[in-house]
Amino acid sequence: MLDLATVRVDTPGVQHVIHFNNAGASLMPQSVIDAMTNHIALEAQIGGYEAAAQQKDAIQAFYSATASLLNTTADNIAATANATDAYARALSAIPFQQGDVILTTTNDYVSNQIAFLSLQKRFGVEVVRAADEASGGVSVSDMADKIKSLRPRLVAVTHVPTNSGLVQPVEAVGQLCREHDVLYLVDACQSVGQLPVDVRQIHCDFLTATCRKFLRGPRGMGFLYVSDNVLSANMAPLFVDLHGASWASADTFELEPTAKRFEDWEFPYALVLGAAEAHRYALAVGVAAIAERNLQLCKTLRTQLALVPGVRLLDEGDQLSSIIILYSERKSAEEIKAALSAEHINVSISPHGAAILDFDRKGMLTAAIRISPHYFNTDEEITTLVTTLKRILA
Amino acid sequence: MLDLATVRVDTPGVQHVIHFNNAGASLMPQSVIDAMTNHIALEAQIGGYEAAAQQKDAIQAFYSATASLLNTTADNIAATANATDAYARALSAIPFQQGDVILTTTNDYVSNQIAFLSLQKRFGVEVVRAADEASGGVSVSDMADKIKSLRPRLVAVTHVPTNSGLVQPVEAVGQLCREHDVLYLVDACQSVGQLPVDVRQIHCDFLTATCRKFLRGPRGMGFLYVSDNVLSANMAPLFVDLHGASWASADTFELEPTAKRFEDWEFPYALVLGAAEAHRYALAVGVAAIAERNLQLCKTLRTQLALVPGVRLLDEGDQLSSIIILYSERKSAEEIKAALSAEHINVSISPHGAAILDFDRKGMLTAAIRISPHYFNTDEEITTLVTTLKRILA
Repeated sequence: MLDLATVRVDTPGVQHVIHFNNAGASLMPQSVIDAMTNHIALEAQIGGYEAAAQQKDAIQAFYSATASLLNTTADNIAATANATDAYARALSAIPFQQGDVILTTTNDYVSNQIAFLSLQKRFGVEVVRAADEASGGVSVSDMADKIKSLRPRLVAVTHVPTNSGLVQPVEAVGQLCREHDVLYLVDACQSVGQLPVDVRQIHCDFLTATCRKFLRGPRGMGFLYVSDNVLSANMAPLFVDLHGASWASADTFELEPTAKRFEDWEFPYALVLGAAEAHRYALAVGVAAIAERNLQLCKTLRTQLALVPGVRLLDEGDQLSSIIILYSERKSAEEIKAALSAEHINVSISPHGAAILDFDRKGMLTAAIRISPHYFNTDEEITTLVTTLKRILA
Repeated sequence: MLDLATVRVDTPGVQHVIHFNNAGASLMPQSVIDAMTNHIALEAQIGGYEAAAQQKDAIQAFYSATASLLNTTADNIAATANATDAYARALSAIPFQQGDVILTTTNDYVSNQIAFLSLQKRFGVEVVRAADEASGGVSVSDMADKIKSLRPRLVAVTHVPTNSGLVQPVEAVGQLCREHDVLYLVDACQSVGQLPVDVRQIHCDFLTATCRKFLRGPRGMGFLYVSDNVLSANMAPLFVDLHGASWASADTFELEPTAKRFEDWEFPYALVLGAAEAHRYALAVGVAAIAERNLQLCKTLRTQLALVPGVRLLDEGDQLSSIIILYSERKSAEEIKAALSAEHINVSISPHGAAILDFDRKGMLTAAIRISPHYFNTDEEITTLVTTLKRILA
C-alpha cells in the first residue's frame, strides 16, 4: 500500500499540472532532480572527469538498482542513451544473414518496425508478424506455429505497446523461445516502472527500456538487459568501443566480460545519477504497490471515460496497462490536447503513423489521444480530467 | 583578442581547480550550467514533453550554433549521445562488403580502431593504415598512393589524436578523397572548440565531435555532420527510428531529408540546451581568438616543461595541438596525476592501451600524463603546474 500524500510531496510537478502523460515522460521526484543538479554543480566546480571519479560508487548504484528492478545482476545491465539506442545495440549484436526471419507482432513499437525494415533492406532479412487474438494481443499459438515452421533468428515483442492499453504475453512467448532455443528481444519501454518486469520469468536474451516514462527518471537515459547466454556466446554490438573492449594488438580486440560491452565509454553522469535515484525511488515505493494502484486508477478512469458522450476507447486485450487510447469524432486529437493543456492537464497524442497496423485494424485513420495515469495521480485529478473532457466534447 | 578576465568570471570552476584536463572534459561556463538546470526545473514543473515543446526554438538553436561552428547549415547536423555514438552512426550508413578497404592512420582514436576491427570480423573489411611521416603525422603522399592503389570504401582520419599533440592534415587528405570520389570520415572530437574546423575546407562526408571537451559543454552530448552528398545519396544509419524515418506501410519506410535521419527520437533536452549555449559561447569568444591563445599557452607550457628534469615530451608533428603528452621515468603517470590532484591541479592519463601503435613506436610501454590547457587558463596556472611538477619529480 503506497503512501499517496508522501509521493505527492516528493513530486513538485503536481503543484503545477495534472499529469496524465506518464507514458511520455513522467514527473520526476525532487530527489531525482537534486541528484542531477548536484552533479552538474560538482562538474562545474571540479571538472567533469574529476566529478565522475568522486561519484564512482553512486554511479555504480545505477546498475544495482536497475538490476533489482529486473531481478538480475548489475553485470547484466548496460546504460544507454535511450530505449531505441538500447534496442539498436541489441539488434546490432546479431549477425543477420540473407533469409533470416525476425518474428514479431503487429503491435511492436514503430521504431523497432523501422529498424527491422532497415535490416530487411540491408541484409535481406524477412520480417514476419504473428497473428493477433480476436480479443487483442498476439496469439501465442500462432507464435508457436511460426517459431516451429520458420525457425526465426530472432523473436521480438514489445511488452506494452505505446499506442494501446495492451499488455502482451511476454512470459508465454519467452517459454516458447526457450524451448526452441531462439533469441528473444523484449521492448519493455512502457512496462518497466508500471508493472513488475522479471527477466527470469520472461526468459529473454535482451530487454530494453527507458528511464523517463513510468520509472520517473530523466530524459535521455535508457538501459539494456543482456542475458548470461548472450554474454557467454561472445555476442557483442557491431560498434564496440574502448569501454566495451580493449585494443589488444594492431588487429585484435578483447571484449569486456559483462554487459558493459554494449555501452559507450562516455556518459551523461548527471543523468545516470538521476536515473539511479529514480530506480531506487521506484523500488522504495514498491513496484507491486505501484502496479496495484495503477490498475485501480485505470479501472476508474476507463469506466468514467466510457460514459463520456462522443468518446471511443481503443484498448483491447485480456490485461490492460496504464495507457488509455481515446478517440472522438467531435474534435481532433490536436484540439483535445490543446484544450486540456489550457487547463494544465497533460496528455499526449498517438499519431496514426506510429501504429499503422493497429490503428488500421481498428479503423482509426487519424491520431488519437493517449492518457497515461501513474500512481501519484489522484481520484480528484481523474474527475477533473473527465469533467474537462466532457466540456470540451460537448 | 579574448578578454581573459571575463571568461574567468564566467567560469566558476577556476575558483576551485587549476584545470589542465580540457581534452577530457573542460570547465563549463555558468551560462551552460544555467541552461541545463533551468530546463531540468521546467521539466520537473510541467513535464518532460511539455518542457521540450515550450523550448522548441531554443532547442533548434543547438543545430544553428553547431552549424556556424563548422561552416555548414543546421540541416547537416545531427545531435548524438557522444562522439563515438556519432561515429558508429556514420559507419553504420556504409553497407560494407567483404574485401572493402578502410584506409586510416596509426593515430586514429582507439574506439574507431576497435570499430574498424569489429567490421573486419563481421563483414571481412580490410583495415589499412597509411604510413607516418618521420616528423610525425600521416604521410599525405602515402595516403594518395594507397587511395589510388586500394580504392578504399572509406578514408577515416582523426583530426587531433587523443594521445599526442599532433594535428593531422585533414584538409590535404580531404582534397585527395574529393579527387578520387572516396567517402571521408573525420573524427574532430579533440579539435572542435580549440581550432577552426571548417567542413567546406576539409571536404569531408562525415565529421564527428563531442561537446564536453574544448567546446566546454555538458558530458553525454555529441554531434555528427553529414554532407549533402551523403544525404542526397539516400545513405542512412542501419538503425533508423521513427524520428529519422516515417513508417509508410507495413513493409516500407521513408527517410527524413536532413541529417535528422541520423538521430534518435529521444534526447536529453537539458543537455541539448547546455550544448547549444556552450557552442554559442565558443562563437562569442571566437574560435580564431581561442586557437591563437591556445597556441601561445601551449608554446609557453611546452618550453617550460622541456626544462623540468626527468620530463620527456612525446608530441610530434609540424603543427601541435592543445594536448601535451608527458612521460617521466621518475614516477608513474598515476602517481603524478594523484600528486597534482592533491594540489587541485587536474590532468589526465593516456593509457598505453589507448594508443598502442603510437606509444609503441615512441618506445612508451606504459601510461603517460596528458596536459590539455584551454584559453581560460592563465600564465600563473602554468607556472604553478610546472613548479609543482618539478617538486613531484625532484
